Amino acid sequence: MELPSKLLENAVNEIAQLPGIGKRTALRLALHLLRQPVEQTNQLTSALDKMRNEVKYCQSCYNISDTSICLICANPKRDTATVCVVEDVRDVMAIEATGFFKGVYHVLGGKINPIEGIGPSQLNIKPLIEKVRLGGVNEIIFALSSTMEGDTTNFYIYKQLKEFGITTSTIARGIGIGDELEYTDEVTLGRSLMHRIPFEQSIKQV
Amino acid sequence: MELPSKLLENAVNEIAQLPGIGKRTALRLALHLLRQPVEQTNQLTSALDKMRNEVKYCQSCYNISDTSICLICANPKRDTATVCVVEDVRDVMAIEATGFFKGVYHVLGGKINPIEGIGPSQLNIKPLIEKVRLGGVNEIIFALSSTMEGDTTNFYIYKQLKEFGITTSTIARGIGIGDELEYTDEVTLGRSLMHRIPFEQSIKQV
Repeated sequence: MELPSKLLENAVNEIAQLPGIGKRTALRLALHLLRQPVEQTNQLTSALDKMRNEVKYCQSCYNISDTSICLICANPKRDTATVCVVEDVRDVMAIEATGFFKGVYHVLGGKINPIEGIGPSQLNIKPLIEKVRLGGVNEIIFALSSTMEGDTTNFYIYKQLKEFGITTSTIARGIGIGDELEYTDEVTLGRSLMHRIPFEQSIKQV
Repeated sequence: MELPSKLLENAVNEIAQLPGIGKRTALRLALHLLRQPVEQTNQLTSALDKMRNEVKYCQSCYNISDTSICLICANPKRDTATVCVVEDVRDVMAIEATGFFKGVYHVLGGKINPIEGIGPSQLNIKPLIEKVRLGGVNEIIFALSSTMEGDTTNFYIYKQLKEFGITTSTIARGIGIGDELEYTDEVTLGRSLMHRIPFEQSIKQV
């Protein structure tokens, strides 16, 4: 694909660095911006620059926040003794949307992934251990996605927390509410059988 | 979707203005930029700003170009008497990739689309008529996509060119080379029957 302009080519190459966006889509987006008023590009680029340069992270849970302590951590009604470990802000938003969780979060910022060169030191694992060491935490709930990387990260943290003798748990894996058994993959179905719960308990949960 | 930071929210909203990118994808892209070194965002935004503010268009064919006359129009080997009318730079690139066309282009910058508020005056139609009026053009080839908007634009230009008595043509519509008849839509199949060509001619073309 030979573009007739270096300026356009640079823009396309930069856009195509974003995950899931190929050269073709990048060109479509660049041409779109060229057709729109110049203000749209200015607003886009200044919003991105501002976000990247000025974004703050909560000093307690490491979630993205405009304040040094995020609204969840600053809320006196939240139970700071129960800490839910998640990958990023999207997971916090998903759990908050359920309205079920009254504890606080700890955002790792990713999962251990040797292939992509992400080791424990690049994640917010140390502050979590430190938080537990300082006391006041009763339970750590692991809520990472159940992939190889998620399981590795869970286990790495679990090993370091063992000495403190606090409760650790992972969110339940099983068949989604309303899902059909026959369309569920074998691993999920197998696990949901292995981790079956007393019937009385399953009624109480509702 | 309630984001915990105004900075992030602004960035997501701006990214989501791009065509084909929803809020969810925009958030994924914003979080990706936050995880990458700050230089990546700087390079992206400066490439976009530079493109939008400094891009030039060829004074002859209105294609995107870093020079005031693009490389195609400036090439003395190209036949300036044959002008191929296209929508944007992607069409120029697609036709150039075939290596078949030795004429020059005229880039309209869009198609007449009343629903999106794009009228003839927003497109580079006037300079095309002017080019023909000044003389030296023998044939205009319409190569817009065969949609309602493309056909409208073709017809609008065709009517204005009529008085000059030059040859006008449209690129052939038909069944793609290697395509199966049974999977071709009826309109294409119907048109390819209507516009059938003498067999001897079809052999010569190869």
